[in-house]
Amino acid sequence: MKDIYIADLAAFDEGKLFDGYFLVLAKQQRTTKSNKPYLSLILGDKTGQLEGRIWEPNDPRIAKEFERGDVVKARGSASRFDERLQMKVDQLRLAQPGEVDKTDLMPSTTYDVPSLWRQLLSFVDSFTNSDLKLLLATLLADPGLSAAYREAPAAKQLHHAWLGGLLEHVISLLTLADRVAPHYPLLDRDLLMTGVILHDIGKVRELSWEIGFEYTVEGSLLGHIQIGTALTERTIDSLPNFPPKLKTLVLHMILSHHGKLEFGSPKLPMIPEALALSFLDDLDAKMQAIQVEFDKCIREGKSANEMTGKVWALDQRQMLNTKRWLGADKE
Amino acid sequence: MKDIYIADLAAFDEGKLFDGYFLVLAKQQRTTKSNKPYLSLILGDKTGQLEGRIWEPNDPRIAKEFERGDVVKARGSASRFDERLQMKVDQLRLAQPGEVDKTDLMPSTTYDVPSLWRQLLSFVDSFTNSDLKLLLATLLADPGLSAAYREAPAAKQLHHAWLGGLLEHVISLLTLADRVAPHYPLLDRDLLMTGVILHDIGKVRELSWEIGFEYTVEGSLLGHIQIGTALTERTIDSLPNFPPKLKTLVLHMILSHHGKLEFGSPKLPMIPEALALSFLDDLDAKMQAIQVEFDKCIREGKSANEMTGKVWALDQRQMLNTKRWLGADKE
Amino acid sequence: MKDIYIADLAAFDEGKLFDGYFLVLAKQQRTTKSNKPYLSLILGDKTGQLEGRIWEPNDPRIAKEFERGDVVKARGSASRFDERLQMKVDQLRLAQPGEVDKTDLMPSTTYDVPSLWRQLLSFVDSFTNSDLKLLLATLLADPGLSAAYREAPAAKQLHHAWLGGLLEHVISLLTLADRVAPHYPLLDRDLLMTGVILHDIGKVRELSWEIGFEYTVEGSLLGHIQIGTALTERTIDSLPNFPPKLKTLVLHMILSHHGKLEFGSPKLPMIPEALALSFLDDLDAKMQAIQVEFDKCIREGKSANEMTGKVWALDQRQMLNTKRWLGADKE
Amino acid sequence: MKDIYIADLAAFDEGKLFDGYFLVLAKQQRTTKSNKPYLSLILGDKTGQLEGRIWEPNDPRIAKEFERGDVVKARGSASRFDERLQMKVDQLRLAQPGEVDKTDLMPSTTYDVPSLWRQLLSFVDSFTNSDLKLLLATLLADPGLSAAYREAPAAKQLHHAWLGGLLEHVISLLTLADRVAPHYPLLDRDLLMTGVILHDIGKVRELSWEIGFEYTVEGSLLGHIQIGTALTERTIDSLPNFPPKLKTLVLHMILSHHGKLEFGSPKLPMIPEALALSFLDDLDAKMQAIQVEFDKCIREGKSANEMTGKVWALDQRQMLNTKRWLGADKE
Amino acid sequence: MKDIYIADLAAFDEGKLFDGYFLVLAKQQRTTKSNKPYLSLILGDKTGQLEGRIWEPNDPRIAKEFERGDVVKARGSASRFDERLQMKVDQLRLAQPGEVDKTDLMPSTTYDVPSLWRQLLSFVDSFTNSDLKLLLATLLADPGLSAAYREAPAAKQLHHAWLGGLLEHVISLLTLADRVAPHYPLLDRDLLMTGVILHDIGKVRELSWEIGFEYTVEGSLLGHIQIGTALTERTIDSLPNFPPKLKTLVLHMILSHHGKLEFGSPKLPMIPEALALSFLDDLDAKMQAIQVEFDKCIREGKSANEMTGKVWALDQRQMLNTKRWLGADKE
Amino acid sequence: MKDIYIADLAAFDEGKLFDGYFLVLAKQQRTTKSNKPYLSLILGDKTGQLEGRIWEPNDPRIAKEFERGDVVKARGSASRFDERLQMKVDQLRLAQPGEVDKTDLMPSTTYDVPSLWRQLLSFVDSFTNSDLKLLLATLLADPGLSAAYREAPAAKQLHHAWLGGLLEHVISLLTLADRVAPHYPLLDRDLLMTGVILHDIGKVRELSWEIGFEYTVEGSLLGHIQIGTALTERTIDSLPNFPPKLKTLVLHMILSHHGKLEFGSPKLPMIPEALALSFLDDLDAKMQAIQVEFDKCIREGKSANEMTGKVWALDQRQMLNTKRWLGADKE
Repeated sequence: MKDIYIADLAAFDEGKLFDGYFLVLAKQQRTTKSNKPYLSLILGDKTGQLEGRIWEPNDPRIAKEFERGDVVKARGSASRFDERLQMKVDQLRLAQPGEVDKTDLMPSTTYDVPSLWRQLLSFVDSFTNSDLKLLLATLLADPGLSAAYREAPAAKQLHHAWLGGLLEHVISLLTLADRVAPHYPLLDRDLLMTGVILHDIGKVRELSWEIGFEYTVEGSLLGHIQIGTALTERTIDSLPNFPPKLKTLVLHMILSHHGKLEFGSPKLPMIPEALALSFLDDLDAKMQAIQVEFDKCIREGKSANEMTGKVWALDQRQMLNTKRWLGADKE
Repeated sequence: MKDIYIADLAAFDEGKLFDGYFLVLAKQQRTTKSNKPYLSLILGDKTGQLEGRIWEPNDPRIAKEFERGDVVKARGSASRFDERLQMKVDQLRLAQPGEVDKTDLMPSTTYDVPSLWRQLLSFVDSFTNSDLKLLLATLLADPGLSAAYREAPAAKQLHHAWLGGLLEHVISLLTLADRVAPHYPLLDRDLLMTGVILHDIGKVRELSWEIGFEYTVEGSLLGHIQIGTALTERTIDSLPNFPPKLKTLVLHMILSHHGKLEFGSPKLPMIPEALALSFLDDLDAKMQAIQVEFDKCIREGKSANEMTGKVWALDQRQMLNTKRWLGADKE
Repeated sequence: MKDIYIADLAAFDEGKLFDGYFLVLAKQQRTTKSNKPYLSLILGDKTGQLEGRIWEPNDPRIAKEFERGDVVKARGSASRFDERLQMKVDQLRLAQPGEVDKTDLMPSTTYDVPSLWRQLLSFVDSFTNSDLKLLLATLLADPGLSAAYREAPAAKQLHHAWLGGLLEHVISLLTLADRVAPHYPLLDRDLLMTGVILHDIGKVRELSWEIGFEYTVEGSLLGHIQIGTALTERTIDSLPNFPPKLKTLVLHMILSHHGKLEFGSPKLPMIPEALALSFLDDLDAKMQAIQVEFDKCIREGKSANEMTGKVWALDQRQMLNTKRWLGADKE
Repeated sequence: MKDIYIADLAAFDEGKLFDGYFLVLAKQQRTTKSNKPYLSLILGDKTGQLEGRIWEPNDPRIAKEFERGDVVKARGSASRFDERLQMKVDQLRLAQPGEVDKTDLMPSTTYDVPSLWRQLLSFVDSFTNSDLKLLLATLLADPGLSAAYREAPAAKQLHHAWLGGLLEHVISLLTLADRVAPHYPLLDRDLLMTGVILHDIGKVRELSWEIGFEYTVEGSLLGHIQIGTALTERTIDSLPNFPPKLKTLVLHMILSHHGKLEFGSPKLPMIPEALALSFLDDLDAKMQAIQVEFDKCIREGKSANEMTGKVWALDQRQMLNTKRWLGADKE
Repeated sequence: MKDIYIADLAAFDEGKLFDGYFLVLAKQQRTTKSNKPYLSLILGDKTGQLEGRIWEPNDPRIAKEFERGDVVKARGSASRFDERLQMKVDQLRLAQPGEVDKTDLMPSTTYDVPSLWRQLLSFVDSFTNSDLKLLLATLLADPGLSAAYREAPAAKQLHHAWLGGLLEHVISLLTLADRVAPHYPLLDRDLLMTGVILHDIGKVRELSWEIGFEYTVEGSLLGHIQIGTALTERTIDSLPNFPPKLKTLVLHMILSHHGKLEFGSPKLPMIPEALALSFLDDLDAKMQAIQVEFDKCIREGKSANEMTGKVWALDQRQMLNTKRWLGADKE
Repeated sequence: MKDIYIADLAAFDEGKLFDGYFLVLAKQQRTTKSNKPYLSLILGDKTGQLEGRIWEPNDPRIAKEFERGDVVKARGSASRFDERLQMKVDQLRLAQPGEVDKTDLMPSTTYDVPSLWRQLLSFVDSFTNSDLKLLLATLLADPGLSAAYREAPAAKQLHHAWLGGLLEHVISLLTLADRVAPHYPLLDRDLLMTGVILHDIGKVRELSWEIGFEYTVEGSLLGHIQIGTALTERTIDSLPNFPPKLKTLVLHMILSHHGKLEFGSPKLPMIPEALALSFLDDLDAKMQAIQVEFDKCIREGKSANEMTGKVWALDQRQMLNTKRWLGADKE
């Protein structure tokens, strides 16, 4: 297990020495403005990334043979540049297989994945519509797909995304949809829940998460909406008696879930379940983004009277942590 | 009590004779294209409106003295013109006071208003924040305000609006918010519920609902956001120890609830509660609009395979009634 | 064969008697403003539509039993109302099977469909890419699909759309693309031509054209982009060795051909062939719309110095017929 | 001189007989919904337009030979249809030359044109920049141009436009600019005033105002900005020593005066004088539109508590007449 | 008094030594790309800001105890980095109370504030509407408010904003409105002038200007439109006989003065005075921004043939200084 | 002739020494973050630009007297900073006249200009419309104009623009238009070709290309649309019998070629030829931009599986090189 994580370094004094295991996300030869050459690394672990700089690449304590994707053990000291944390790397070697757990090296959900997965299956189990239940059971029983579903992040940008992020987002949405559905009698609960489970399923092929999170070429050209729709359609077509109308509705849920044409949905929601899905999906994504920002403010020691930085998911708006602000007088 | 309502006429044969009590919403002298003069009335009751035409205004069976705002008893026959229902009025007289219940003459909520009001007070009662509880108790105890709150429609257009519509919408939102709030620990439930109760309170002065639903001049120039904010601020200022920060937050909830500057909110939601309020308010309004359209399709005898007409609240999109469509094969 | 077509009536004097065969597109009971009941028909043939009015439905010369979708023979006189042509129907009976050719009753392409189809196959034959050639040969060999491809209109609105319109548009685009492709060496001609042939193929299920042109429910909820992508993907998956990268590119051509997210493409063109397709498709559609307007002006007797009416496909812009205007002085 | 103007008819009782001189703006054969043929005329005079209907075109009291553009004397009675005034025409003959003054037949400015023209020349006279003074003196001395400048309307739509409207608008703007220029030392007054005089000069060829107000084909294809720029450039090029920089600035004033690309200015204001011109031009146009609406409300007998109808020039907003509303309590 | 101002440094040679008094606007520990630590200060005075860098924080000539908000005397040398001016700080000590005038340390209006204030009162004195006169007299007599009104900047960004900026902008607008009002008889001059005085009054609480210019949390959540409206409404409610209609109009002036919903006005101008206010406010702001840019070009030694940099207030457009360009040939 | 070009340097090792001739595009005194002064040069040749840094300006091997616009011979070593190439300059002297060919120092078309020009004239020669042929022959015979037409770049940004770029773009468009015109019978080929030749002709005065590519002040204030229209109009007016209608059409082609008001066209295309021109111009510009990006990827050694960087001309979209990607498996 790792001892030191990138997020811990924020509290370090300038120049403090430390060592740790990291995943090499990028490696490039660079030169400073004053013409000094160095090797620039992007190092990542589950808590974040930082730039590492090797000023003496020929130092015998620096391994020669390592590449993007390798796990390394590095020793050096912390510094700050233009608000961003950096590491001056003095020693670096390749890690031995087994020396460090790979899940320590990529950001991942703080929830227990097997437990999230059981919740997902149990929601499916609660369906009264047997066609939808069979569709989901079939899809989620596919070993390759279910493994990917458990691992996939929900988005590319590291600060919004982590291994298991897709599953975590879906469970939050299922719980929320389960609360909202009974409030509107015109909603078909099982269809809504099916939409929640399938809406982002195309992300398992739109993104790759081997070394950092990236769009695949297929993902760039087709997008997760098309990939997810095709995957779902293929599964439905393998079921002998799936009702054609229900197929149209399920596909429409996936196609329209972004809620606006300009967000890449080729169709706007035209059934109540699709409208509700697009609202709840958007609300849940924004609530998670706000929570992340509030946590970050506390971690960075901002006062309760300060607003957050500009939140990308909220059109660069700054938010105020209500509860903390109200409580500030009592602190 | 009235025997015949405007909504019933849709099922009448052309030319069928009937009589009923109506509120006169407009009265104008007109001429047909072929140069035939007539008196055009807009007649309303709780189920809708229709045009009444008097072709023989000098007929002794037609009262001379009646104006916009009067309640009349009219007898005539039904016809259709360009899809719209019309009444050819043969006889008309002023109704006697007491002859008809005025609540039969304006569209109103199908819920029991005293019961809705008790639900509202009971939600306030459930608050743990004593400042917010006192604020709402004070506001809702004002006799003039509470009477208006119980009567006000939620919007001007007749097909979206009815007496008691504001209260009905608020109760739906409170119930929904009460389900959603526990799902997000970062939400202050009482602040969210306060926002729900106050967000449209300015409508009690933005609209008038004596004879049809109209904007007041004050409503046109200031809007319900400003009117509601001022009303709330005045009440808060009358409470000796209301925390200033909490005041800012409550006012922000009202100011930002439209969620977009172009919808007339001078501020975007900058606290989680305001963001949630703007999502839930929008979702609830759209769900109600969809329900109204689905009901209308059934009333008009449209088949389960037809989509609704263009829904104004959904940018003129047509919607499909999922449950009915899926069930259509079984019918 | 029919003797008289709706488009001919424009030249008729008011009140002139005529008879002809028509398809009944709609049938409704109506009332005039002056309270006179009548039966309103929408009658269509290959050249257009007009309203027919039956003022005496009980006249023994008017058949009782006819419905939307029936072919009728009607006799009456022409009139104009608010610029639109009308027919006062005096006699009406059901047409006997065989009495009139059904292709006379729906607007259809002026080109020879078998010849257009041979051109299509011959373009496919010219491909050097054997995978794409096999894909198209397989698709176009499907009897149901190829029949629909030959019949489908390119759009719903009657004035833009006719039987065979899809095929006519595709042949025009193929010819154009064949001229443009050699000009840009970076374009893969066969991929571009494949995109042309497949881009609107989903319209065979998005639209129905039995009685007038309508969106199907499936078409409304999924759209021709999704339908066409799925249809193509299924065919590719049936071919043993179709290259996966080529599959991604072909699907991307269909997905992105509208060129803008707000026009319902879930992806913007990201390869040169997709960019070229979106430009040429848009140009060809607009050029056809302009040609239709210019023809209409001549048919309606507008002078060469007048601009067209507002062209819907050009954002309601009016166009000038250059060649006719320049020649006007010599006429 | 005419005795009766179209605007007077608003106060007439239904059916009242009258006669008057009118300009025939359009003439068309029509049929009512109930299939009754009639001749429809658009008749205009300086105060407005109305539809005239001839139900008996073969009546010997109706002249056979008259066309669009003719001046006629008509006798008939007033009626109203769908809020619009109509005239049932019983008699109609061509007016004799000299029988009526043509300026009575087109809407025109209420100001004295020679006096407005003297004001224009006197503003030019006040310039200290001799190059600009010479430019304007040369342009305005052109007999054809100056005649057209005095006659041209400022826009096509009849309710916003009248003969002399261009000159009236320019004089208002010159007076306003003369008040504003000294407030900002960075403004070159003579350049600003030159921009005011020239900004809409292209309208003398963009519009025709012989029979109603229409766009010319040249006006549609080139626009008044291009026409005005070319006209100004040609005049400048005829002056031997006009400074090239000043020419660039003068042309820029015309090009950019709409203030936004989407309003048809190919360049945005990039000098202070152009910015000021675009603001003042827009303000003056809107203030005139508001005045027109306020006058219309009074003419139509609306109460001081009513807002105007939707004002086209203000994005369909309704306005309130402040002074009248405040005074309403005293009335 | 200070001897050297930040704006003077632009003309200094690289490396020239100087000393001066500055306000510390920010203080942070940083590291260069080449890993060299330093203390970064943002130093401000009335003419601008610059970054100061302390490379040897342990030098005994550098005071240890100073914070954001302190006034310091610093000695060092000027340099340039990426076009921006910097100061290498060699010595630094806290200034003694009284050693420097605090108005030298913040940007402030170049006008005499007492004289501006007298102009403001004299404009109020010129009103004929006694209700508006009393309202403004009451508001401006409030000692706290009037002190803040005299000090407040008009906006946050330093280059647009200075102490007294609000008052300076209001006086410019009052003078301008006083010139424009008589040109349009439909304008109520006193109402327009009242709108000018009150439109930005909420900025006294939206912004803080103790140490640099910042938004308060209240300002972020409520905005100056809401704050100013509430402040005005409270004062009106304290006046026994203020006419209710006039109150509505005054509040509408404040609410609508941004002229567009997307600029944060919850209502668009619906009275002529509000329309005029929104135009003149916008014009005045842009004219001031242009003047600032022209001054900056001259200070920076740009040639008369160069356009300004991109002007933020004009959507990043570059402007040309007309008068200077025209005069350039004569220089 | 030059031996070494800037584009070659990308392949150089860090620190490799070289010398070459360059045009000095800018020269400024700067300081590094660590306070080290240096002289920064922007050096250009036909293949690109790079920053040169002189750290020892007083070294006797560095010439003192050289300015922006001079041609110099410089010796030094290559380095990279933040992905951008830099040159550390050790020696620098002014080049002697004749020592280097100036066409080596600015980016220029890779085509033979005299041959492109012959193609242009030969297209004109192919016209059947003698008026248009005479117009173009007259314009292109003007020595100053034709020289400028052969030299002008098509746009300012260096990476999109090169000497001869305008002519190269026009020849590509003429060839394309010649292929497309016969496909649409409603197109007047000669008018379309005339539009192609004239649409960007105003760029000969909008841009200057003596030392780098810049907008002239005239170009900024008037734009190439106005400049080109005026130039064309003046030539037409010099031809005795040019048909006025044809003049209007030619000017409309230039005015409307950007296809959208927001792109600076004051008129939208209203004739088929103008519509076609705006499509083909846009397509050709984007195809060229894509080709440039694909070439850049290959030059930079990107893999066939990587998409390009964000393409400015395609709204920052990334593109995939289809042919290379499909071929990647075979490589």
